[in-house]
Amino acid sequence: MQPFMYYNPTKLLFGKDQINQLSNEIGKYGRKILLVYGGGSIKRNGVYEKITYELKKANVEWVELMGVASNPKLSTVRRGIDICKREKIDFILAVGGGSVIDCTKAIVVGAKTEADVWNIICRKTRAIDGIPYGSIVTLAGTGAELSLSAVISNEETKEKRAFVSSFSRAKFSIVDPTLMISVPKKHTINGVVDTMSHLLEHYFHHGNNTNIQDEFLEAALRNVATTGTKLLQDLSNESYRETIAYASSIALSDQMNMGFVGDWGTHHIEHALSAVHDIPHGGGMAILFPKWMEYVLDDENVSRFKRFAVNVFGVDPSGKSDKQVAQEGIESLANLWKEWGAPSSLEHYDIHDDKTFSLIAHKTMETAPNCGNFRRLQKDDVLQILQKSL
Amino acid sequence: MQPFMYYNPTKLLFGKDQINQLSNEIGKYGRKILLVYGGGSIKRNGVYEKITYELKKANVEWVELMGVASNPKLSTVRRGIDICKREKIDFILAVGGGSVIDCTKAIVVGAKTEADVWNIICRKTRAIDGIPYGSIVTLAGTGAELSLSAVISNEETKEKRAFVSSFSRAKFSIVDPTLMISVPKKHTINGVVDTMSHLLEHYFHHGNNTNIQDEFLEAALRNVATTGTKLLQDLSNESYRETIAYASSIALSDQMNMGFVGDWGTHHIEHALSAVHDIPHGGGMAILFPKWMEYVLDDENVSRFKRFAVNVFGVDPSGKSDKQVAQEGIESLANLWKEWGAPSSLEHYDIHDDKTFSLIAHKTMETAPNCGNFRRLQKDDVLQILQKSL
Repeated sequence: MQPFMYYNPTKLLFGKDQINQLSNEIGKYGRKILLVYGGGSIKRNGVYEKITYELKKANVEWVELMGVASNPKLSTVRRGIDICKREKIDFILAVGGGSVIDCTKAIVVGAKTEADVWNIICRKTRAIDGIPYGSIVTLAGTGAELSLSAVISNEETKEKRAFVSSFSRAKFSIVDPTLMISVPKKHTINGVVDTMSHLLEHYFHHGNNTNIQDEFLEAALRNVATTGTKLLQDLSNESYRETIAYASSIALSDQMNMGFVGDWGTHHIEHALSAVHDIPHGGGMAILFPKWMEYVLDDENVSRFKRFAVNVFGVDPSGKSDKQVAQEGIESLANLWKEWGAPSSLEHYDIHDDKTFSLIAHKTMETAPNCGNFRRLQKDDVLQILQKSL
Repeated sequence: MQPFMYYNPTKLLFGKDQINQLSNEIGKYGRKILLVYGGGSIKRNGVYEKITYELKKANVEWVELMGVASNPKLSTVRRGIDICKREKIDFILAVGGGSVIDCTKAIVVGAKTEADVWNIICRKTRAIDGIPYGSIVTLAGTGAELSLSAVISNEETKEKRAFVSSFSRAKFSIVDPTLMISVPKKHTINGVVDTMSHLLEHYFHHGNNTNIQDEFLEAALRNVATTGTKLLQDLSNESYRETIAYASSIALSDQMNMGFVGDWGTHHIEHALSAVHDIPHGGGMAILFPKWMEYVLDDENVSRFKRFAVNVFGVDPSGKSDKQVAQEGIESLANLWKEWGAPSSLEHYDIHDDKTFSLIAHKTMETAPNCGNFRRLQKDDVLQILQKSL
């Protein structure tokens, strides 16, 4: 293992009806709350009512920032910062999936400085403080509730940047699967793919003496694969929602990658891709990850892919070359996601040619000059992976 | 799953040479340190030198509390509290295994109150504050470095009590396997058994929708079983030490039991047993756990034991009844520990008859009236398990 530091002081409140803990928790931190959410689905599915009931019970005032879109935009972050400063907000409550939580992570640091928040996101300026915040997850997948990092899109420059700050750790995160029952199929697919993609990024690493951790990842991947299939046939099943929510939360909590560093090259490519084309992250990962696997598989790393095929998808290795087994594993993953209805090529998002690929590859290398830890990618590698994705 | 709260803000610094982080960490918290350790092995194996080098580097003063014994004694706790009050200690550094860390957990709360610490340990008085502390683990097994609970023995009344306080969470814990290389075989065996016993206590539960967690536990158990065997043949192997240290730390970190509650009945019996006979906890668990398994196995819970046998020890179920498979699993565990040289009966500790059993059973029920969650035990059950252990 590589020496590591694990420090995750977010209080996770997980399970059925944990939303009822909100008034308790929020009362500890703030009197004037900024409630951040997305397109308004929480007003249709009863979640907004549950939350405002708890806010009233805690006897706190609140103002609202609505309309955080997927691939959260810098302009929305700026809007949130303005409200925080004007209204003297002392706590932020993010209600949604990764986009809402990521947007909040940027607001909390931006509201405590006179510096431009984009400079903080681009790591040119250091965050000096942060408004405390909590999150309520209504869409499983990104694991943003237990992670430090956030990804923000600058819609003017078409840049998408990931940043990390010690102030962007939630005080508490409520993950209540009963809030996820009404998530539509399309978003559910993207969420489950996103969870698997985090586990997969961890899995492809060159660490040593990590067999326990590798078996944990394999177990999580197997279970998410199986439960994902069941959930997509029975979207309102609370147990399946619970399993996926659990896997999603732990996948990015740093519990699943103790002592080694995963690849993450595909995430870098996807961030550049969705900066240019504004497609959903989970959809982008569904297209790119199997293509990345096909592209980087070689004689030196085949044993890792073979292990993946056998231990995650139960591929029978007898009578086959290592490469054949490895390829069957990759196909199994691609087929699984295809069966779910996840996109498998860029055509799905009306990207029919390679016109933007040079720009995407350029942006990938610009934000991630060291792109990929399992296999270091250069610009030409990124271009070839994009070509395969058409 | 049962709804759960996961909150573990201890900073874990894990891996080779992480001891070099000590001066950085300790400098954040204290100027006058109480250094708590055990019988002095750290003076013989170079650990004491490394630590005092770091303390000097951090430019802190320190005083020492040496001689914490296994099954840490209330009198030692009181001695530590006196030093803290007299010397105005503002940070405690525990260096050792579970005994030293548990002793420290009691000192930190006792030093911040005028109340009798035994009343806090017996949950008659609430802890009101705690001196911050950090731990450096030199013996893997108890997982005390990431847990809240501590067990203290009152040598006058022959009582052993477990207590939990929100102040007994370490600020940081350094788990550096290079510090464990010289741990003698006997202590190593007890540590590995203790780690397995924590995973086993988790594993026997009645939760539902916990397949991911169950597979995590099975993976950890398989790996600790295999690596334990290798380590005991090659005690100075750094990789094996690392694997066991990692498993030990996560086993009691609350990461391995999210959404369900394990049994813990055998731990209650062992605490009473070692309160009366002052035997090592790992040794007691090695004797008791397989006997508990044999005793509680019945037609209703056989599927759990069968799963254990197949998934942890690879027992082939074909042509066998569920009960036969279950029993083979229990035998596999007992045989593994016997091969390691762990005690398998109370004879090992010169307990040749049942004279003290009634007292032990009485103490078990006194401290744990609801003894065991997988199978609730009454006093007679405890007596029978003890009888089987002779």
